[in-house]
Amino acid sequence: MSNQKLWGGRFSQSTDKAVEAFTVSVHFDKRLAYYDIQGSVAHARMLGDRGIISKTESDQMICGLKAILKEIEAGQFNWRHDLEDVHMNIEASLTERIGETGKKLHTARSRNDQVATDMRLYLRDALDDLTAGLKNLQRVLVGLADIHSDTIMPGYTHLQSAQPVTFGHHMLAWQQMIERDCQRLIQARERTNVSPLGAAALAGTTYAIDRQQTADELGFDRPTENSLDSVSDRDFTIEFCSSVAMLGMHISRMAEELIIWSSDRFKFIDLGDAFCTGSSIMPQKKNPDVAELLRGKSARLISNQTRLLVLMKGQPLAYNRDNQEDKEPLFDSADTSIDCVNILARMLSNMQVDKKCMYQAAGEGFSTATDLADYLVKKQIPFRDAHEIVGRVVSHCIENHLQLRQVELETLRQFSALIDSDVYDCLTLEGSVNSRDHVGGTAPRQVRKAVARARKHLGEG
Amino acid sequence: MSNQKLWGGRFSQSTDKAVEAFTVSVHFDKRLAYYDIQGSVAHARMLGDRGIISKTESDQMICGLKAILKEIEAGQFNWRHDLEDVHMNIEASLTERIGETGKKLHTARSRNDQVATDMRLYLRDALDDLTAGLKNLQRVLVGLADIHSDTIMPGYTHLQSAQPVTFGHHMLAWQQMIERDCQRLIQARERTNVSPLGAAALAGTTYAIDRQQTADELGFDRPTENSLDSVSDRDFTIEFCSSVAMLGMHISRMAEELIIWSSDRFKFIDLGDAFCTGSSIMPQKKNPDVAELLRGKSARLISNQTRLLVLMKGQPLAYNRDNQEDKEPLFDSADTSIDCVNILARMLSNMQVDKKCMYQAAGEGFSTATDLADYLVKKQIPFRDAHEIVGRVVSHCIENHLQLRQVELETLRQFSALIDSDVYDCLTLEGSVNSRDHVGGTAPRQVRKAVARARKHLGEG
Amino acid sequence: MSNQKLWGGRFSQSTDKAVEAFTVSVHFDKRLAYYDIQGSVAHARMLGDRGIISKTESDQMICGLKAILKEIEAGQFNWRHDLEDVHMNIEASLTERIGETGKKLHTARSRNDQVATDMRLYLRDALDDLTAGLKNLQRVLVGLADIHSDTIMPGYTHLQSAQPVTFGHHMLAWQQMIERDCQRLIQARERTNVSPLGAAALAGTTYAIDRQQTADELGFDRPTENSLDSVSDRDFTIEFCSSVAMLGMHISRMAEELIIWSSDRFKFIDLGDAFCTGSSIMPQKKNPDVAELLRGKSARLISNQTRLLVLMKGQPLAYNRDNQEDKEPLFDSADTSIDCVNILARMLSNMQVDKKCMYQAAGEGFSTATDLADYLVKKQIPFRDAHEIVGRVVSHCIENHLQLRQVELETLRQFSALIDSDVYDCLTLEGSVNSRDHVGGTAPRQVRKAVARARKHLGEG
Amino acid sequence: MSNQKLWGGRFSQSTDKAVEAFTVSVHFDKRLAYYDIQGSVAHARMLGDRGIISKTESDQMICGLKAILKEIEAGQFNWRHDLEDVHMNIEASLTERIGETGKKLHTARSRNDQVATDMRLYLRDALDDLTAGLKNLQRVLVGLADIHSDTIMPGYTHLQSAQPVTFGHHMLAWQQMIERDCQRLIQARERTNVSPLGAAALAGTTYAIDRQQTADELGFDRPTENSLDSVSDRDFTIEFCSSVAMLGMHISRMAEELIIWSSDRFKFIDLGDAFCTGSSIMPQKKNPDVAELLRGKSARLISNQTRLLVLMKGQPLAYNRDNQEDKEPLFDSADTSIDCVNILARMLSNMQVDKKCMYQAAGEGFSTATDLADYLVKKQIPFRDAHEIVGRVVSHCIENHLQLRQVELETLRQFSALIDSDVYDCLTLEGSVNSRDHVGGTAPRQVRKAVARARKHLGEG
Repeated sequence: MSNQKLWGGRFSQSTDKAVEAFTVSVHFDKRLAYYDIQGSVAHARMLGDRGIISKTESDQMICGLKAILKEIEAGQFNWRHDLEDVHMNIEASLTERIGETGKKLHTARSRNDQVATDMRLYLRDALDDLTAGLKNLQRVLVGLADIHSDTIMPGYTHLQSAQPVTFGHHMLAWQQMIERDCQRLIQARERTNVSPLGAAALAGTTYAIDRQQTADELGFDRPTENSLDSVSDRDFTIEFCSSVAMLGMHISRMAEELIIWSSDRFKFIDLGDAFCTGSSIMPQKKNPDVAELLRGKSARLISNQTRLLVLMKGQPLAYNRDNQEDKEPLFDSADTSIDCVNILARMLSNMQVDKKCMYQAAGEGFSTATDLADYLVKKQIPFRDAHEIVGRVVSHCIENHLQLRQVELETLRQFSALIDSDVYDCLTLEGSVNSRDHVGGTAPRQVRKAVARARKHLGEG
Repeated sequence: MSNQKLWGGRFSQSTDKAVEAFTVSVHFDKRLAYYDIQGSVAHARMLGDRGIISKTESDQMICGLKAILKEIEAGQFNWRHDLEDVHMNIEASLTERIGETGKKLHTARSRNDQVATDMRLYLRDALDDLTAGLKNLQRVLVGLADIHSDTIMPGYTHLQSAQPVTFGHHMLAWQQMIERDCQRLIQARERTNVSPLGAAALAGTTYAIDRQQTADELGFDRPTENSLDSVSDRDFTIEFCSSVAMLGMHISRMAEELIIWSSDRFKFIDLGDAFCTGSSIMPQKKNPDVAELLRGKSARLISNQTRLLVLMKGQPLAYNRDNQEDKEPLFDSADTSIDCVNILARMLSNMQVDKKCMYQAAGEGFSTATDLADYLVKKQIPFRDAHEIVGRVVSHCIENHLQLRQVELETLRQFSALIDSDVYDCLTLEGSVNSRDHVGGTAPRQVRKAVARARKHLGEG
Repeated sequence: MSNQKLWGGRFSQSTDKAVEAFTVSVHFDKRLAYYDIQGSVAHARMLGDRGIISKTESDQMICGLKAILKEIEAGQFNWRHDLEDVHMNIEASLTERIGETGKKLHTARSRNDQVATDMRLYLRDALDDLTAGLKNLQRVLVGLADIHSDTIMPGYTHLQSAQPVTFGHHMLAWQQMIERDCQRLIQARERTNVSPLGAAALAGTTYAIDRQQTADELGFDRPTENSLDSVSDRDFTIEFCSSVAMLGMHISRMAEELIIWSSDRFKFIDLGDAFCTGSSIMPQKKNPDVAELLRGKSARLISNQTRLLVLMKGQPLAYNRDNQEDKEPLFDSADTSIDCVNILARMLSNMQVDKKCMYQAAGEGFSTATDLADYLVKKQIPFRDAHEIVGRVVSHCIENHLQLRQVELETLRQFSALIDSDVYDCLTLEGSVNSRDHVGGTAPRQVRKAVARARKHLGEG
Repeated sequence: MSNQKLWGGRFSQSTDKAVEAFTVSVHFDKRLAYYDIQGSVAHARMLGDRGIISKTESDQMICGLKAILKEIEAGQFNWRHDLEDVHMNIEASLTERIGETGKKLHTARSRNDQVATDMRLYLRDALDDLTAGLKNLQRVLVGLADIHSDTIMPGYTHLQSAQPVTFGHHMLAWQQMIERDCQRLIQARERTNVSPLGAAALAGTTYAIDRQQTADELGFDRPTENSLDSVSDRDFTIEFCSSVAMLGMHISRMAEELIIWSSDRFKFIDLGDAFCTGSSIMPQKKNPDVAELLRGKSARLISNQTRLLVLMKGQPLAYNRDNQEDKEPLFDSADTSIDCVNILARMLSNMQVDKKCMYQAAGEGFSTATDLADYLVKKQIPFRDAHEIVGRVVSHCIENHLQLRQVELETLRQFSALIDSDVYDCLTLEGSVNSRDHVGGTAPRQVRKAVARARKHLGEG
């Protein structure tokens, strides 16, 4: 009597129940069913076309596989834990459905190349969803930049007022971060979209298969180059998880700013009732929970990638069962990143900006001190000396509770006789912002130019 | 018309559907239901005892909560995603069940102290399960050490044959690793088992509550010291995840050895058909999948801990919604560590040791070269010179395809005239092993002593 | 001709120069010299006492080792990269200095147990330094809590005004975090302070050594239990790095608050000119750089621990050269954590608190809304209904730009007829804070009690 | 009296000595000196060309900067810790050297854009070094593949003998891994090679600078798009560290195989005396230390990347001092990856392959069982049934201590009557290997084709 497993021929004892529970993966890898069937259909068709099985057998298989997919999509498929994984469940179901012919599906194939194929197909779709979401997010950001090309806010370094900037300029900084994420993901897709099918267990197969045919049918760019590498390579999952770890870090920074800007002391923005939640005990609370979750999700994205690297570290080639652990972090990073990008775009579209409050804040903290130093430089004072002089003016202001523009000319001239009444022009927020008028600068004119460039790049004319 | 949320009084718009989906946690935090109800029962009783609500109300609540628990345990509870989390689901159900009185349950409490209480209760149970599993694993290891106190195997450093050791000694090295894990978890339990209940949102509450009473009823050692800290502290989750990351690392090392020892070239052990699985394509395969998964799970455990640290990094006090992300890694680390420990103990109990093969391997690789050096030292050659001499003997052996014990006395004497015919005693595996006879050494006598000490420590007399 | 390495007897080729450069560790492990010599002295004395070498030889060695230490401490020791590591450098120097006898030092010992001993001695000292620093930091925090037991500030959740708290209470929350760090480090010390000396390469040694003697001389609590474990165990480094990763996370949270509190929009505190730095371009800037670096250092501490776990993952017993990589992260985590703790204590001692600004901020954001709900509960309105009513009052306030205490009684009564003129008492900040008067609550009375408990615990009477 | 710092105008107290020690970075960022001066020269020239300073001043600066570089390269520069960082050291030295004009260098610039420029220039060079190293490593691997296109070894999955493969095929699997690393680094270079110079503190500058000119002079592809992003973006460091974390993981896998192949039980390869080291105690030891260190270094590379992500997580724009912590991990990852790649290439060039031992090992473990199943399939038995039959044959072999090719035809026919005497052809190692003859398969013919493709890709004709 042999073990009931599809691989059980040489086994005299059946699998320990606890082992079965410990090694089962069907509860999470069934998510690959759609791709598994896609891959099997292509494989079956190729087997038929190459005469490895008959055309009739091939057609029967394809027909059976499609029926199984329908059953799965209708939620009527009976997933069996004793059959371990998505692959064995589908193969067993096929044989049950079409008889002996089903037992031929696994000819010239192994679960090793099969699962690598499934994962690449899955990830390609996830990449496309995510990239679309990122394009949309960029559009929202560029839209905000357009509307707010001359909305003045305090620019911060070290969370201290630094120089006035425009809110549009700030939104475009975010857009640049997202644009780099897009680029990385598009390049990651190229390395994902190759076909390991035909690598079989690790060495290729003795049948006269046509790897190009299956690659073509599945929309892959080409077959992989090396069978050992094909079954042991998980770079594509790690590269994806790395890229979205970076994206998650970007989003955490945006979220941090949204939280700070929403706080009682800042009140630069209002995220809206529909995007906030309340407290179970404090009736007045309106919390930026979505932004906080967005910030927190970065931990998940960062750790998923670490997890995959640690998983692969030190593994000898070719396939080891450790790799069963690669799916959950991949799925989680894909789901999380797509959800985060979409909710962020939606929340930003809904955000109200309090221009007045931002403007007022920009007027505090001596944010035009650099402009004053630049004013002195233009009067031939070396920059380092100008910096020193303005530093002393600021000290004077702090002691006397003044803003720079409130200091009288006479007083200013005690710090440098070169200061004239035209100094007040450079101390206005508008003057400061407008004067940073070069590529990449915060001047409204530059922001509008950058918006136009970004729109063109996003294919929006 | 107000928002339907229990916290919705001040909100004029209802929550965006996408936000609801993004922020919901009930699908994973419902796992805390048992502990949430335990906590609410203790809270309700205390409110009644202190006269904050009437005794009748308190009794009604407790009765209702217990009925809800039964419903949940029977799988009949209707979990509503629009009610966000386990806490609001249970509170809403209580009010539905017992009417107005249910609305009083949240008096003098916030979700912030409530969830901290739930998580501590949950983790205390998980810690106890895990510690029990680790004690059992230690017993299995000590049992193996006892049986194999004089089974000789090659001891490796750098995966190169170093010196012969006993397999029992090796099993006790593993037991020591697990013993340290136990200690750390027992100490982590002390810091887990304190009651945050009564900290309310962050500042404590205006009611005359009795925190000692709820702490006592829930089996906590004492109330926490500071309300702000009580709702923002997640150290207990991180300390647990750190401790099991270490445990996971330990298990990965054991698993690596089991995999190597099972390989065709080693064959030191047989893990048994019931603990191995086969290949979908290669009929001869019997793979140590369980050991490989054990090795791989360490990645999960290591990254869960990183995840929690990253999550908490830079969060201002007190509670932020980021912390909703703390539950999944905690649950995952608890489940994973308990499963791994149990399956490992079970697999080791079933493992067959091939003494003959180990003995043969121990005889290769010049594993008694150090013994030869020590022999020379005892003849008054400085150790460093003895090392040099034996190094040259080994070179001679490699060139002539000999093992040390096969070199003729005359030849040996060409390397050092101090060598005599008694040298062959120290070149036997038994001689080598028996001579390492001090505390912690590999001599069978020491292994048996260590077994006795470990058994006493484990309370096995 | 043999290789010049002390282990070179069997080698016919000398080490590749690039290999020598790649494997050398003396540039960082020379930091262990003091501990290495301590260990060698104890080992030499034991060898003499047990008659393994003569007393005279033992004395010569000890004398020579002490002379070498002096040379090292004076910066006059010639560290040779071709001798690989601190151990071989010192041994070679000893032989150069005292001749043949030096070649006997390594009798009954291996670098494997030697380095484990050195690292444990080093870490024990680092642990003691750090623990002292943490006690001092706690004293600073308790001192601030004492001074500010009734300084009112806004308590935040979600960075939104939640309820008024006292600044002293906040400082005690920080102290609790640090207290847990202390406890963990003290327990980590116990597992660090055991002696691996005598484990030799991995199996113990053939000489009649006395491991208890060396353990005693070195101040270790006891010899380790198992020789294999002794040379492969790096738990003590990981447990330390885990504990300080947690500490680093705590400090990052404090730093985040210090940065926010220092920002132009908050201005709750002034860190002082001596603890801030300026900008190379913006003359007005006074940046909380120290706090930012403290926040950033957490990344270092978190990743050092991950690094060690990844390093050890999957390593078969006993010693592998991978472990050479364990020293740099350990040293870095020790240095970083000690520096951070000390500078934080120093900066907090110097910090100025702007009570007026905090008080004013506490009065905004409807921070006493919960008090109003509690007021209604005490008038027999179920809490959930009271929460709803107050939520509507807050909506009214927002629309009409009022704070709660500014709403006229008549208006309030439109929301609930149970409201009376005594309501205004519970809407004051002092009333709110004073009423949270139970263990762990924010009431000044409780803060003072907690200060007294903490002082007693810290041994300050 | 003002503070002596170059930014000290507004400061009334001088910096605390402990703060100075805590915040100093010159001991590690002086490594950027070469790039800092390159950037300053380009900046100075542009200031002169645009008339912001005079041509004479510009020339003076450039001349002074070049003299400083010479001093630094000669090791004669006096690095001052009180001047904080590389930038301020060089600026101060310039002013000392050329007088007042030096004070004008920082016109239209901030340390924020300056350091971003320096790091990009540094990384571009490191990327080029690393890419060259990776090309060389690929050439070594392709060379080995060529020599060993028909050297047969056991192919492993789960470290169990799976199917025979060629050693050349295995080397090409490694080459594919490295090729992907190359691609990622080349793409990372594109995102690195853009010029942030001119972004100034965060908003751009009020001077009529020419960002294109400095970008061109420094060999950057173009100026960055957004000034805020330019000073806060550290993606390029993280992307690099991610890419080399993957590379490190790859190398750890190769190292693991080298270690296993070198072990006494495998002996597939000999790494050579020049690439191994010995033991301080065991005279026979020849340890694969380099391979072990290569495996261990992956921990460093993985954690450096985590460290940078954690560092950036949650930082509000634009620049924060946390970012001072970004340099050490970047330098470390660059140094480590370049060293590892170079030593690995060198070690592989020196490696001896024991073909006989590999061949013998390939003959064990029933590695041709799949070929037998395929044989049956070609006789019209469905694959799943063929798998089952062969599984039973293998069981028979294990019981009777036979290899597959040793089973008599009669016995084989008891398992399936379709088996004929031609079966023995498919059971030979050569037959097995040769039959996997499709793109990516292990057949020597395919290996040679793949070698040719790889050589062409590497530009070797």
